[in-house]
This record gives sequence, structure tokens and C-alpha cells, in this order.
Amino acid sequence: MPIFTNDYPAARMVTIAIIGGSGPEGRGLGLRFAIAGHAVVLGSRDAARANEAAGAVAALSPGAAVSGALNADAARAAEWVVLSVPYEGLDDTVRALAPSLDGKMVVSVVAPLAFEGGQPRAVLVPEGSAAELVQGLVPNAQVTSAFHNLSAKELLKPHERLAGDVIVCGDDAQAKADTVGLVNVIQDLRGVDGGPLSNSRIVEELTALLLYVNMRAKSRATIKLLGLD
Amino acid sequence: MPIFTNDYPAARMVTIAIIGGSGPEGRGLGLRFAIAGHAVVLGSRDAARANEAAGAVAALSPGAAVSGALNADAARAAEWVVLSVPYEGLDDTVRALAPSLDGKMVVSVVAPLAFEGGQPRAVLVPEGSAAELVQGLVPNAQVTSAFHNLSAKELLKPHERLAGDVIVCGDDAQAKADTVGLVNVIQDLRGVDGGPLSNSRIVEELTALLLYVNMRAKSRATIKLLGLD
Repeated sequence: MPIFTNDYPAARMVTIAIIGGSGPEGRGLGLRFAIAGHAVVLGSRDAARANEAAGAVAALSPGAAVSGALNADAARAAEWVVLSVPYEGLDDTVRALAPSLDGKMVVSVVAPLAFEGGQPRAVLVPEGSAAELVQGLVPNAQVTSAFHNLSAKELLKPHERLAGDVIVCGDDAQAKADTVGLVNVIQDLRGVDGGPLSNSRIVEELTALLLYVNMRAKSRATIKLLGLD
Repeated sequence: MPIFTNDYPAARMVTIAIIGGSGPEGRGLGLRFAIAGHAVVLGSRDAARANEAAGAVAALSPGAAVSGALNADAARAAEWVVLSVPYEGLDDTVRALAPSLDGKMVVSVVAPLAFEGGQPRAVLVPEGSAAELVQGLVPNAQVTSAFHNLSAKELLKPHERLAGDVIVCGDDAQAKADTVGLVNVIQDLRGVDGGPLSNSRIVEELTALLLYVNMRAKSRATIKLLGLD
């Protein structure tokens, strides 16, 4: 497989903002979306960090359309918005961006986690899940939930094969199908419809379990559904 | 692969009671444990149903040590006890059996599920998970949680290959290791340490998500952790 190419380019180029895009997960997803042919704006609370991240990602994929911006500017500029921020800051971040999220597809990557005695555990979210918290704050956005269980380190190695399925939850059928499509343009990954947004809790919490397994086995295991065509 | 044999026999033959053993999941697990060389007692609230189930399982694996008994007699006779009953009856069943469970390894297969408009959803358990409910009722038993995400229909076809990982949760290290071993004697399955019993909620709820996917895709998908040696 040649480096930096993709056999499954996106059918339509979309501008995607990644809120919290200067972190490893945000950079990794941004890189993969850019390789697929999308225009990516990595957002940060700090413009210098956003630009630094965009430069680093662009260096990994020459010719890709990656830029940096403040979170608010990134959200405003984008058709689709990916939320890749810690759960602790999610509520404030989404409230601040809410006017720019109206009517857009908003993909939550947020997995609420805490560490207790060095062990990861899932944090109970009063709204059910991080994704449902987001949907409650921006009722006119089409919120989906995806990409929780991927390793940022693997995403940032575009010359190595990824593995696994990305379970996508959402209540809006078109947004869910678009999110599955957004997964499928990343080579070697498969998007799987995981049901309504209320199922997002399961996928978010699975992150804690996978993290436990991976810390214990010093692995970067992902999940795959076997027996699904 | 020859039919009805197992390349990974159990290191030590154990008598295993399956409470709710006349149902499809209980029969399927009983069959697989028996093929591995364990003595299996299929328990039921009805002695005739228990005996019918034992006869049906024995017919699938000639020579296997499978018998039927009332749940209480099965639990009393066994070293290890597997709980394969609906969540609705779990509390009453465990209270009734509690004296026989003391000091034993008790494996909960229970996944609390409900259907809403034809769609499966995970039921919130006040104790966190079905397995923690059990542990609370029998504090002197070593409770683990496993086998939630397997298809009963596939378990009941001993001549076909299984696929997937069984995530095992538990707070007692020896009981968890024994449960992983109990998985590993089933050909083609792999037991994975999924952490403390409080992680059981995640595995139990994953059953609802897998059921959603499988109902939608008319599949019997199981999960596998890729990238784990």
C-alpha cells in the first residue's frame, strides 16, 4: 500500500472542524480525514497551538488541506464539526460554540473517563452519554457519536494499517449514514450503525474497558465485530 | 477439525451447575463445558425440563457428563455455578440459592435487556450491573461475569467454529483467572481480562448494542479485540 494515498476517497469534499484538534486524537482524525480528501480545520482555544498542530499534520500528509484556527472560527467555517475535547470541558465548549453548530452534523468523540488508583473507569453522565449531553445543548444540530475506540498513535501513522470497526450512534438517519461514510473513507476502518444516540453510552464506556485491557497488555487493541458482512 | 473433540481440554475436571440451564444459552454453554471435559448439571425450576435439556445436550455430545436437576440441587452439587437466567428473575433466584453459592465461583452471564418499540436497550441496574447485584447478595462467593456476547445458536452447533473474545470481569483474581480458563477450553474462543466487576456493566450493555446490530444485519456478530496477543 503506497503511503499517503487512499483507495476510498470521500464522495464529496467537506470542510470538517475538529474542536480540540490540537490533541493527539484530534490530530489523528484530522490527518485521516485530510488524507481522504476533506478540508480539515484543527481548532484550539489557542491560535498558536492550532497552527502548530495544523503544520504537524500537514507535514505528515503533503498536499492535504489542513489549517488551524480558534475553536469558534473552526466551527463557524465548517460543514461538519467533530468534538474531540475532554469530557470535563465539553459542556462549556459546546455552549460557547452552540450558534455555530445549529443545523450541522456534530460528531462526538468524547469518552468520559476517570482514573481511580491508576485504573480507568467510565464516568456516569447524567444525560446518559456525552453525545446526549451535546444533543441536549444543541437541539438543532444532528449529533452522532463515533471514533471513540481508536488509538491516536495509530491514527498518526498514515503509512501503517489501521484495524477495527467504528461504531456509530445517532438519532438522525442521514447524519448517521454520513458519519458511517466518514469512517469508511479512512482506509481499513469500517463504520457500523450502532443504533440510537442513547447507545452511545455503551460505546463511550467501552473505551474505559479497552483502555484497561490495553494498559494491562501494553497493547493498542481495537474492537471488531466478527460475522458481520 | 473432527466433531465433538477439543484440542484444549480442561486441566482439571470440575462440576459446573448452570442455573437456568434449560434455556438456549444455558444449554449451549453446558454443551461446550461438557465437550471440554467438565461435568455439567443443567438446572431448572422444573425437574422435567432440566432432564429434557440434559438429554438434548447429551445427544449433541455422546459420552459427555451432562445431567439435569432442580436449580437448588444443581447449585448444591457444583464447584462452579453459572447463572444464566433472565435479569427479571435474578434477584429471587440468587437469594434462594445463596447458601449453596457461599465460597464458590459464580459466573454471571446475565445481560439486563429490555425492548422498546422492537429495539433492544440496556436496562440500568441500580447496583451497577447484574454481576454486582449477585455479588451483593452472596458476598462470600467469588463472582465473575462472562459469556454475555455469544450466540446460543452458535454454541449449540459443536461442529461449527465459534469466533470472538469473551470479556471476563471480576474482583477476585483467582476466580477471574479460572473463568478465563473456562473460556479458553472452549475451542476458538479467547478469554480476556476485562477488569473489575464494576466493568461488567459495560460488557452487559454491549449485549444490547450487539443485539441491535445483529437484528439489523440479520447476523450473529460477536466481538473480537484486534491487536491483542
